[in-house]
Amino acid sequence: MDETTEDQASPEMRARIRDSFERQGLMRHLGARLTHIAPGRVHIALPNRPEVSQQHGYVHAGATSAIADSAGGYAAFTLFPEHASVLTVEYKINLLAPAAGEYLEAVGEVVKPGRTLTVCRLDVFGVQADRRTLVATGQQTLICLADTPDR
Amino acid sequence: MDETTEDQASPEMRARIRDSFERQGLMRHLGARLTHIAPGRVHIALPNRPEVSQQHGYVHAGATSAIADSAGGYAAFTLFPEHASVLTVEYKINLLAPAAGEYLEAVGEVVKPGRTLTVCRLDVFGVQADRRTLVATGQQTLICLADTPDR
Amino acid sequence: MDETTEDQASPEMRARIRDSFERQGLMRHLGARLTHIAPGRVHIALPNRPEVSQQHGYVHAGATSAIADSAGGYAAFTLFPEHASVLTVEYKINLLAPAAGEYLEAVGEVVKPGRTLTVCRLDVFGVQADRRTLVATGQQTLICLADTPDR
Amino acid sequence: MDETTEDQASPEMRARIRDSFERQGLMRHLGARLTHIAPGRVHIALPNRPEVSQQHGYVHAGATSAIADSAGGYAAFTLFPEHASVLTVEYKINLLAPAAGEYLEAVGEVVKPGRTLTVCRLDVFGVQADRRTLVATGQQTLICLADTPDR
Repeated sequence: MDETTEDQASPEMRARIRDSFERQGLMRHLGARLTHIAPGRVHIALPNRPEVSQQHGYVHAGATSAIADSAGGYAAFTLFPEHASVLTVEYKINLLAPAAGEYLEAVGEVVKPGRTLTVCRLDVFGVQADRRTLVATGQQTLICLADTPDR
Repeated sequence: MDETTEDQASPEMRARIRDSFERQGLMRHLGARLTHIAPGRVHIALPNRPEVSQQHGYVHAGATSAIADSAGGYAAFTLFPEHASVLTVEYKINLLAPAAGEYLEAVGEVVKPGRTLTVCRLDVFGVQADRRTLVATGQQTLICLADTPDR
Repeated sequence: MDETTEDQASPEMRARIRDSFERQGLMRHLGARLTHIAPGRVHIALPNRPEVSQQHGYVHAGATSAIADSAGGYAAFTLFPEHASVLTVEYKINLLAPAAGEYLEAVGEVVKPGRTLTVCRLDVFGVQADRRTLVATGQQTLICLADTPDR
Repeated sequence: MDETTEDQASPEMRARIRDSFERQGLMRHLGARLTHIAPGRVHIALPNRPEVSQQHGYVHAGATSAIADSAGGYAAFTLFPEHASVLTVEYKINLLAPAAGEYLEAVGEVVKPGRTLTVCRLDVFGVQADRRTLVATGQQTLICLADTPDR
């Protein structure tokens, strides 16, 4: 798995996001981890294990979506003011290929930032050795709750 | 939590779906369970625990989506021929309210069955004592893989 | 085509919505008309003519979506405060069957009203004599712009 | 408006798509025209006129979506076998900014081609002199109907 790289993001922002991520019980329970934090862009990796599978042994669409949703949420969060909080309004995701590989990597990227609403693109890759396959792609709308600290 | 009710579905169909569900490692890992199987309609319940939470303590959108996706998938599956398999093509979900309560219940229901594609409505309720609150609603497209046994 | 029925909506609300609808050049150009205005629910009918067709002679998904989007937008608008305006944030629509019939009728209905965001369900029917066929179904998110008069 | 460029696409493919587009009564009625045809990528331009407006004078979300849907449909169609036809299964679109400018340009691009289902990305730009603004972005699923000629 790639080493964590956090180019460009300030230490404060990184700390805020790592702290928030660690309070997401689901991410810990699934075994997901933050692998990249940059302004408007966050990556989350999920090792492929039986605990995240569907009935054919691939990663379940729900687990694929969960890391995509969190990656997009934190990508938006990197651009929010300090005392704000983020909520997912909605998202849509296409499952493009069987989610296989050693691990999945979700990439959340801000397409359109906004004071109230932010729109992200979500891409999830299956990674096996040097090969990355796009297994899901989506689009997400997030809302910034001003003056609602994340914790 | 409601007692399991499986009105209308044949014993064979119920067995096929229970068997498939039990092979979904993610559902077991999240603690989800099938609570209703009827032709074109499946319910899945998810107890609210720290292992499925987001950073504010509510159920994570990813966990909410995961049970919604499985409920819709199995709702479609109830209408498929015997030796077919089901895959999610895509879904879209709106998170309407904080996902709170003792447990969530996802209801997947077929809106339009088809030989190749089936469209489902997805609703997720937060249940606290006698009170049910709609916390998410979505729409899903599934594909029937003929002659591709589910196991 | 059904007679216009406007049960329950106040004369002021009906006037506001009819006035806004008439300023939608696209609705006039397509030949669409408002057929029902109630709190949280609006219908729009579109006669089937060559001007709204796709390449096989059915109504184009774009025209089907256009009346669905307007129906949902005005359904939300019926619940907004007096000096507010409505904008579509996003929508998703499944085309379920060939859009045929003498006319289409789009039904926009509020699923979850909110101070900032409102979520609607969108259904479009093809109507031929007494027969109504569901040809499209969707889900839409709208935003209320407070203190931004619609005109 | 940009000159039509049709790099890479074969004359037969261009003819098939132009012929199909011309049978879309809606595109003609809206004043839309094909401005680019390449394998897996099609552009459609829509001049901004009162006939395509919403109540505030911007281009209506329905017109924006209509050209996005057609652009994605024809982008998929460029990759289909000769005697096949294309239908939109579903799409989701976010309206990101007021759709203003002299004209809109929709860009449909295949993200994942497939024998049965193809997934496209949809982007719509508002163009004013040299300035292009992303006004909408979406994601679309299309189905290939084999042995179903487009006309």
